[in-house]
Formats: sequence, C-alpha cells, structure tokens
Amino acid sequence: MAAIAVCSAASCGGPQNDQNSPKSAIDVIMSRKSVRSYTEEPVSDAQIQTILKAAMAAPSGMNVQPWRFVVVKDQAVKDALCKDSFNKMIGQAPVVIVVCGETTVLRRPRGAAEDAEPVAMDNGNWTADCAAATENLLLAVEALDLGAVWTACYPYEDRMKPTREALNLPEGITPYCIVPIGHPAAQEAPKDKWKEENIHYERW
Amino acid sequence: MAAIAVCSAASCGGPQNDQNSPKSAIDVIMSRKSVRSYTEEPVSDAQIQTILKAAMAAPSGMNVQPWRFVVVKDQAVKDALCKDSFNKMIGQAPVVIVVCGETTVLRRPRGAAEDAEPVAMDNGNWTADCAAATENLLLAVEALDLGAVWTACYPYEDRMKPTREALNLPEGITPYCIVPIGHPAAQEAPKDKWKEENIHYERW
Repeated sequence: MAAIAVCSAASCGGPQNDQNSPKSAIDVIMSRKSVRSYTEEPVSDAQIQTILKAAMAAPSGMNVQPWRFVVVKDQAVKDALCKDSFNKMIGQAPVVIVVCGETTVLRRPRGAAEDAEPVAMDNGNWTADCAAATENLLLAVEALDLGAVWTACYPYEDRMKPTREALNLPEGITPYCIVPIGHPAAQEAPKDKWKEENIHYERW
Repeated sequence: MAAIAVCSAASCGGPQNDQNSPKSAIDVIMSRKSVRSYTEEPVSDAQIQTILKAAMAAPSGMNVQPWRFVVVKDQAVKDALCKDSFNKMIGQAPVVIVVCGETTVLRRPRGAAEDAEPVAMDNGNWTADCAAATENLLLAVEALDLGAVWTACYPYEDRMKPTREALNLPEGITPYCIVPIGHPAAQEAPKDKWKEENIHYERW
C-alpha cells in the first residue's frame, strides 16, 4: 500500500476560491445536486484531472480498480451519446465523462495450485466500484463549483448499445454511466432526502 | 424539489475540530481509506446522524431513494453478521451500518392509462443508489476522523443469506453492504490508485 500526498483542491487544479475558503466535505456532500444545464464556459484540463483523481480514489473490492474513463469534448461524439431526448444535456455540456467498467478479472481459481494460470472470472464488485467512483467524481465537481448529473447506462441495453458504438468500446468493457459536466447555468438547490423512516435499529 | 439548509460538519454533529479547520471535500476524498481496526471509543449518536444524512444525500435514479439503513450496536447482532473470518472487524466495531436496498418500485407501466394501478417493477438503479449512498457514508466517516470499511454483501448469496437472517430483513429488501465504523486504532494511509492508462480521450 503506497502512501500519497493528500491533494488539496488548490493543488489539484481547483479554482482560487477553493483555496481561500474550502467548503467542508460534509457541506459538499449535502449541497451536491443534479445539474442539467450549463454555460458555454469550458471546464479546464486541471479541473478534469482533479475530478478523475477523485474518481480513482474510490474504494475497490479486492483493489481491482475496474473503472475506466472516457473523456469526451468532441461534439460529434457527444451527439452520438445522446440520441434520446431524455439526455439532451449530454450534447450541451462542455465535457462528458463516461464511466466504464471491466467486468472480469484475471484470477487463479480458488484452491488452484500456486503456479496455475489465472483465468478471466466475473468481478462481482465492478458496478459497486464504478458507482463509488462516480459519486466521488460528482462530489469533486460540486467542490469545484461545477455541475453534473449521473445518467445511467447500465443495466439498460438500449442505452449501453449506442454508448458502446459511439465510444468504440472493446469487448469486456461495459459503459456504466454518462456524466455531463459544466458550469451551472442556474442556481439549483439540493433535494432534501432525509427520512428517519429509512433507518432501523439493531434489526428490521 | 425542496431546498434544505446546507448542513455543516459542526451543525450535523461533527467534532469540534471540524468546525475550526474543516478538511476540504477533495482532501477528504483523497484521504479516505479502508479502516479495519478500531478503538473501543464509541461513535456518538450525533456522528451517526451526520453519517446517515450524508448517505441519504446521494443521487438516486428517478429519485426513488431505495436505500434503507440498519444501525447495529448490539454485540449479538454484530456477531451474527460476521460468521466468516474475512469480516471479523464487523464484530469489533462499536457501530455497524448495514446498507440495504428495496429492489422494486411501484410504477404505472409505461403507456398505461393515468388511472391505471401502479405495479411493482424492478428498479434497475437500486444498486447504483445504494453504492452512492455508501460512498457518501464513507466520506462522512473520514470527514469526522472516524474509520470504516465497505464490506460487500450483494451479489454474494453466501453473504446475503446470513445478513438477511441476522437482521430479519423482509422480502423485497436486499442487504447491499456492511460498514463497520469506529475510531481508527492506527494511522493508515490511502492507496494511490491514480492510473493515467485508465483514461481515454474522445473514444476508446
């Protein structure tokens, strides 16, 4: 396990105001919201790197890190990703990150000899890891005063197929979700989802 | 969409040092790590509430909010949750939160009349929503200077079955993951998972 220097918003390419008055993590978690309309102002490469660093810092079962990211700025590719009306915001965002997952992992079968060849096995954790990476990504977006929205691909075949085609994804790589990112065109408020009835104590 | 007051670490029950020098969200994301050993110091109810508020602030497809949480402090229940050796830390943590999901949602079938009765349909987003809630939960833990580890239940039947039994989960509620939480017994460093080769541009 390698230690890394903790990366502040400022050193990772965050805007100046993050350096001067960083929002606390709890504040960012509570103020994150889905943002579906963006100004034309571009998202900087430094901001994209901060966002991807946050995504890759997510937990990963057995440390497989099955996540893969496709960063899309090309308008033709964005347009190919949003043929349906429900996700028009994909074509309008300055940058779109498609989170993909490698669904198998090379492992020696349980109980096999130490010199046995590893074989491709289903990775039962790939969706969990991609989801955690996506949530980190969205929180980094919020911390940078940008806006984004999680658009599901998996497990909907009618969304995965055009995404695979638009991005030329190889076999074994499944598109998990599509996240358009930009500067919010309007001030939006987070939803209040706190429900005590969703909490049980000791047993159901 | 209801607006809520943004909840700071301090106002949500965070420790005093969060109020005085809050870690930025990016710092917390980059410094989160899996913590598997804990001191005997309890986790306060205020901290548990902050953690659950963060979890419920996660994004949710169609705003269904399928997440349910079981907060376990009872040693007998904790012991029932960790019959296997791989997750001994569950029995040793002062508090354990089991994230569960309601896997179906009541909806009118697409194209049905407005007065048609809603029927129970599979919610394709329930795992994504539970994973995002779990990641928020883990980041809140890190922000509060506590430690935790994501222990997968779903999709492993040999882990889901004892969890269902220990918690008396009703039909339709699936245990997604188990998160033991406590004060870290040792200083641990986050893994460096940054890999440029996991990023593609425009197309694969």
